[in-house]
Amino acid sequence: MTIRFAICGLGFAGSVLMAPAMKAHPDAEIIAACDPNAETCAKFGADFQIPTFASLEDLLSQVKPDAVYIASPHQYHCDHVLLAARHGVHIIVEKPLTLSLADADRMIAAVEKSGVHLVVGHSRSHDPVIKTMRHIVDSGDIGRLAMINCWNYTDFLYRPRRPEELDTTKGGGIIFNQLPHQIDSIKAISGQSITSVHAIAGGLDARRPTEGHCAALLKLTGGVNATLVYSGYDHFDSDELQFWVAEGGRKKNPNHGGARKVLSELAPGGEAALRVQRYGYGGPISKGFAAGEVGRQQPHFGIMVATCEHGDLRPAPTGVLVYADDGLREVPAMVGRGSFGQGDTIDELIDAIAGRKPVMRDAAWGRNTVAVCLAVLESSRTGKPVEV
Amino acid sequence: MTIRFAICGLGFAGSVLMAPAMKAHPDAEIIAACDPNAETCAKFGADFQIPTFASLEDLLSQVKPDAVYIASPHQYHCDHVLLAARHGVHIIVEKPLTLSLADADRMIAAVEKSGVHLVVGHSRSHDPVIKTMRHIVDSGDIGRLAMINCWNYTDFLYRPRRPEELDTTKGGGIIFNQLPHQIDSIKAISGQSITSVHAIAGGLDARRPTEGHCAALLKLTGGVNATLVYSGYDHFDSDELQFWVAEGGRKKNPNHGGARKVLSELAPGGEAALRVQRYGYGGPISKGFAAGEVGRQQPHFGIMVATCEHGDLRPAPTGVLVYADDGLREVPAMVGRGSFGQGDTIDELIDAIAGRKPVMRDAAWGRNTVAVCLAVLESSRTGKPVEV
Repeated sequence: MTIRFAICGLGFAGSVLMAPAMKAHPDAEIIAACDPNAETCAKFGADFQIPTFASLEDLLSQVKPDAVYIASPHQYHCDHVLLAARHGVHIIVEKPLTLSLADADRMIAAVEKSGVHLVVGHSRSHDPVIKTMRHIVDSGDIGRLAMINCWNYTDFLYRPRRPEELDTTKGGGIIFNQLPHQIDSIKAISGQSITSVHAIAGGLDARRPTEGHCAALLKLTGGVNATLVYSGYDHFDSDELQFWVAEGGRKKNPNHGGARKVLSELAPGGEAALRVQRYGYGGPISKGFAAGEVGRQQPHFGIMVATCEHGDLRPAPTGVLVYADDGLREVPAMVGRGSFGQGDTIDELIDAIAGRKPVMRDAAWGRNTVAVCLAVLESSRTGKPVEV
Repeated sequence: MTIRFAICGLGFAGSVLMAPAMKAHPDAEIIAACDPNAETCAKFGADFQIPTFASLEDLLSQVKPDAVYIASPHQYHCDHVLLAARHGVHIIVEKPLTLSLADADRMIAAVEKSGVHLVVGHSRSHDPVIKTMRHIVDSGDIGRLAMINCWNYTDFLYRPRRPEELDTTKGGGIIFNQLPHQIDSIKAISGQSITSVHAIAGGLDARRPTEGHCAALLKLTGGVNATLVYSGYDHFDSDELQFWVAEGGRKKNPNHGGARKVLSELAPGGEAALRVQRYGYGGPISKGFAAGEVGRQQPHFGIMVATCEHGDLRPAPTGVLVYADDGLREVPAMVGRGSFGQGDTIDELIDAIAGRKPVMRDAAWGRNTVAVCLAVLESSRTGKPVEV
């Protein structure tokens, strides 16, 4: 079965990360795309030999894809999901599902009514190492899961940004953009939902006025607990603890403070241009991803340890390290049919369409993740734990 | 100035860890010791050429030391501190100060009334790397401290134990014996007190019926926050993230599951004998410490990152790694006059006696640490945060 995809939004996630994954996936093809930027549309359309449109509405009025990948800015996710559902088109929607629970409820209702499948992703919870951890926990081989702890220290806040990416009310900052990877991974590994959040988040640089660091204690159904720590200030880089493999699976060279230095040397107004140059379609990162999986190790998201009765689990470059009662072994990563992570997201939708497996990261899952993000903000503001 | 010490309790802390540190310290000497075990007393007394006694009462009735190091089992700390204070003798008392806040209050009152100095330690907060982190934070060079996060994954629960060491009500388990190192380090680095604790602690092995894992979110005065994670189940070993240097500063060879294996192969009743053989005075570890500092790197307690506005700090084998705005540098560890850690504990008392610097880790400090340990248990039981 080949699923014919349209891509809605040709930004970094859509054109740089997901498009090559769809192209490489044996069961997917891209048949159309839309983006308000005519220049990007023209270039992308020519490269992929597909029609492009200025809006999803235009696209769906003229093309009938099997599924649409919605990678528009967060604030448009809800409208685009509702539109796709009305057209009876299956959906992959980038995380976060949306920015409000009211929107999430509308999306859940729309998807239910139309009977289409919806997958929230890609998030790092789709990565083969997380799927492998889930498989090991689920097998019961190392007993009951007790806690999951994760740290990620990155340069997130100093990557070139649009202004709204530094405005929490518009879905900017680490809470809506980085924490979902940890939250979803914790949920995926445990197979449980998060019920309570006690968090402290804050900002350390008035020129990047959004949350850049966070520490949270999470309680889950089934008696599982978790902590997550995130800091995006380009100081310590936790990939140092993760074999110097970068999040995406490429070898990384230590470059503490490098992102801040690049920004500090820009002429006024240069940040937006740098963002397009670096993260835009056809730029250096885009070309790297288009080149495929050669030399790529398993992607990850900082360092993470899951503690079970008879062993601890930890993602590694080629699989999952199992520190069990009788010593250390490695379980190879359970890779999917496509590229690591993005390919697994596509797999999840196709498996559901084919009736092989229900969607795990569905709209209700996405709602829970958004609720956790909102609870992080509320808990940090009130100083109290928040029930989700 | 030479301070003449008596040692009360010739167990692991007293005879193996602290005695060689006192012997090596330029400003300390050991003039007497006491322990109910006559055999240990005889051996220790002969080696150090000092009189030994069956109890602290006997010792203080016949010898007049300047200070006593109290390393008796936790439940005797209070009586021994009260006795020493009555005799006008300065005090170093092992962590935890005691097991109840009522006892802690009696100890605070006794020390105040007698005018002696009391230091709680050694804890890993005395280590040169922690002192160096404190110095950097205090200097303001890298701005305001926002959060401290620490993990320690060890084989604590499978080291050979006496039964009471696995009984929380008697001060056993990780809460009273391992968490104080993290709690005290967090307090020392920040210079703040812990005001609120939200924790989950539990046990994963019914044969070792005490808390063996814990995750906690801590709030401190001054707007500082912290998380601590501990697991003592001999699975993942976080010294893997810490350059494979062991807690004490020696090179470590990975041995996941090794402690559990040794226990599982013991004949019934063999654990107590193994404990004495391994941790007792004159055993292999004792001889290692007696041999001095050659080849020793900086001790540490798992992995720890302190996040300030303009940099993250992290202990390393020879100093503190500073991941600052402009890149990575290392600040050499501020070593004291004696051996790493234990020697710094002795320094703290001598500095106070000499009027050079007040005690930081005094009885009130120790009370706060005990209150945090008790709050960890209460919070874990009630599921709610606990004010300290």
